[in-house]
Amino acid sequence: MTSRLEGRRVLVTHADRYIGPPIVDLFKKEGAEIVADETDYANADAVRDVVERSGRIDVLVANFAGPHRLMPVTNMLTDVTGFRDEDFQSYLDELVWPLLWFVRATLPQMIERGAGKIVGCTSATPMRAIPGLNIYSAARGAQNAFVQTVGAEVAAKGVQFNALGPAHIENNMYYTDEMLSNEDVREQFVSQIPASRLGVGADAAALALALATEASDFLAGQVIPISGGWTT
Amino acid sequence: MTSRLEGRRVLVTHADRYIGPPIVDLFKKEGAEIVADETDYANADAVRDVVERSGRIDVLVANFAGPHRLMPVTNMLTDVTGFRDEDFQSYLDELVWPLLWFVRATLPQMIERGAGKIVGCTSATPMRAIPGLNIYSAARGAQNAFVQTVGAEVAAKGVQFNALGPAHIENNMYYTDEMLSNEDVREQFVSQIPASRLGVGADAAALALALATEASDFLAGQVIPISGGWTT
Amino acid sequence: MTSRLEGRRVLVTHADRYIGPPIVDLFKKEGAEIVADETDYANADAVRDVVERSGRIDVLVANFAGPHRLMPVTNMLTDVTGFRDEDFQSYLDELVWPLLWFVRATLPQMIERGAGKIVGCTSATPMRAIPGLNIYSAARGAQNAFVQTVGAEVAAKGVQFNALGPAHIENNMYYTDEMLSNEDVREQFVSQIPASRLGVGADAAALALALATEASDFLAGQVIPISGGWTT
Amino acid sequence: MTSRLEGRRVLVTHADRYIGPPIVDLFKKEGAEIVADETDYANADAVRDVVERSGRIDVLVANFAGPHRLMPVTNMLTDVTGFRDEDFQSYLDELVWPLLWFVRATLPQMIERGAGKIVGCTSATPMRAIPGLNIYSAARGAQNAFVQTVGAEVAAKGVQFNALGPAHIENNMYYTDEMLSNEDVREQFVSQIPASRLGVGADAAALALALATEASDFLAGQVIPISGGWTT
Repeated sequence: MTSRLEGRRVLVTHADRYIGPPIVDLFKKEGAEIVADETDYANADAVRDVVERSGRIDVLVANFAGPHRLMPVTNMLTDVTGFRDEDFQSYLDELVWPLLWFVRATLPQMIERGAGKIVGCTSATPMRAIPGLNIYSAARGAQNAFVQTVGAEVAAKGVQFNALGPAHIENNMYYTDEMLSNEDVREQFVSQIPASRLGVGADAAALALALATEASDFLAGQVIPISGGWTT
Repeated sequence: MTSRLEGRRVLVTHADRYIGPPIVDLFKKEGAEIVADETDYANADAVRDVVERSGRIDVLVANFAGPHRLMPVTNMLTDVTGFRDEDFQSYLDELVWPLLWFVRATLPQMIERGAGKIVGCTSATPMRAIPGLNIYSAARGAQNAFVQTVGAEVAAKGVQFNALGPAHIENNMYYTDEMLSNEDVREQFVSQIPASRLGVGADAAALALALATEASDFLAGQVIPISGGWTT
Repeated sequence: MTSRLEGRRVLVTHADRYIGPPIVDLFKKEGAEIVADETDYANADAVRDVVERSGRIDVLVANFAGPHRLMPVTNMLTDVTGFRDEDFQSYLDELVWPLLWFVRATLPQMIERGAGKIVGCTSATPMRAIPGLNIYSAARGAQNAFVQTVGAEVAAKGVQFNALGPAHIENNMYYTDEMLSNEDVREQFVSQIPASRLGVGADAAALALALATEASDFLAGQVIPISGGWTT
Repeated sequence: MTSRLEGRRVLVTHADRYIGPPIVDLFKKEGAEIVADETDYANADAVRDVVERSGRIDVLVANFAGPHRLMPVTNMLTDVTGFRDEDFQSYLDELVWPLLWFVRATLPQMIERGAGKIVGCTSATPMRAIPGLNIYSAARGAQNAFVQTVGAEVAAKGVQFNALGPAHIENNMYYTDEMLSNEDVREQFVSQIPASRLGVGADAAALALALATEASDFLAGQVIPISGGWTT
């Protein structure tokens, strides 16, 4: 065990979803004091409450995934003419708005201290199209553009805001055990990945740790795809 | 006068805003039959009505800008901690939802004919950060990711869906005459543009025409920045 | 027939290779006066001679492909540890140096007139990896970076230097008739292309025409991939 | 002191130039056994000798900069029509060929062990144009495309080949103390960097360490710009 996050307080959002669980595991091992939030983010007030209850936040892991009721991510062509408005609204509600609210609520204390790290867990899908994922990709594209612009805005204030953009990484929301237990589905994914394997949570957590520590000291507003070379 | 759009029916949305007016001018000169729509796009039904009233649509120019009540686009740092939820909602309502609705409503007839062009007029801001434009850029990022994914989805059906991403181009919504009458503001913009000038509507319309004709026959889901080299 | 290049003198390099033949065909139809050069570009002096003999050059189509003796482009994994130095040197000699020399020799007259278009025909491979093409991609990457930087440098002087980056387009150098007569090879390519077809020369020529005319008036240093959505 | 590279043998090329010195410092602190090579790389044989003398190489830091005799990097417009062939040849000789040779010479042992990390230190200039740097950028563009393609090729063999692309980072080759002692020059750079400061060697070394360890386990062929947000 090293202690790369010794003395750092880390708020992880949607801590029970997506890249949340492996990040909580790894960051704990590295000595962080973790606030692993698993509540719903229904509106700006709810988010502000979470941030206020969290006290000092040295690192915000802005990890969002959802909603639970939607079908898992697949790369099979769906009827593009048929997306439902409520599905896109769900993506906005679960992915985009919470990111905006958490960043807005957390930045003031970081700017005041002149120090802070925000690590988004967004997606690589806006960097390479996956047929069928049009509204999901739109929501992730909003996230990535927000990271980029706000990251540039706050860089001069000692806050580094960057993100990892996972694709083809096993997690409990999109690339679920259930989906991947089908060998054909798994093989179809793997055949598209230069690394010849699906990623695991620990891969993404290790990159998140880099973005939460010195490796991001001169990065600003960057979304780094992590996909075994699929976006390369 | 050439006649590169002879016999083509073109629906231009927000025809009185942003890149709409120069596109209507140029496309008319090129022989197109134009439906220049200037209504509001409050919901999916309103959009479907516009599309149905338009009849055959060979080319959809998915041009969205707004809302009118927001401040014009600037590249001056604003207080990132202070964006208002209603402003981002306005961008979603005026930029993102209408794009989704128009594409969804128009694609079926294009797919049925096995032919069609959709030309988005989005923005280059998601390709390079402009401090102060965080929620605007997020909305444009959603558009660009949607173009990319749907463009890839429908390419096999004979429909080419691509976009131009303007930045630093004079128009009646963001880089307005009023704003640019201030010589300091104008000079500040120009100093950042390799071409040493602001773009004009005709520049963007010429690229839109390319995307509406043969030049896009083997493009799919691409957002081409047009910014005088600012994004280069 | 329209006449979009009426009165324009166009120098096309490697006019008998790659995108050269379809560009010569289309640009002639559009009224251009074409200098279709098919000589070798062994050194800077040879290139300077070609440019001087060409007289006024309104449009330079900087199209380079080769060398003839190398194996055709494939996307099959080759032994990366085995590329031969002479092969990379050949790519430098046939792709990179001629681009630099032609641009250097042609720019002065364009800058003096305050007007000119340079249209590179490079490649999309530096935008998405194709296993096996490492040294080819390196040479194309040098071209693309050169387009970008010089395009930004000369934009203020009234010269627009941009490029198309073909991939998966039939031509007489890489995606040859001979290679594509093998149905399995063809199908392997097509399966990766969202447009579900290989591109043809006319597709690329149409984009080149756009870059040689008004559509590029506010572009600078951009390499536009043309690949049926493969890079999207 | 942590020990993130305990037991790892690391070959650093051009160890006395560019990002070499801070990487040697940091990697030593992390417990690596360093081979800090400072010889010239005149041809493939010379490079093969360096690699053979180095024994087992767990991590190759492929850091190249030069040549010494060229003027330092500036962002001032130079006469594009005037680059000299020998200058581009120097960039090929010092930046591009050595990268190809070192990667070719080192990969076999990594592939045989099914494990290895290659960390390139290239440049962000091919991602955003700096007027005046056209041939430098071309050489760096060749490097970046090579990283991308080879990184994708070898990912399935347990080797992660990625790179950092520095810009606006103080070092002994391009952003030298001498150049930056001029306050106007320094200020001109800083004004373009969202982070409002130049980077230091330790910033780049920290990212290199991430790419040499677990953070890159599911990355392949990626060039990560590090520029304080300048490329964002």
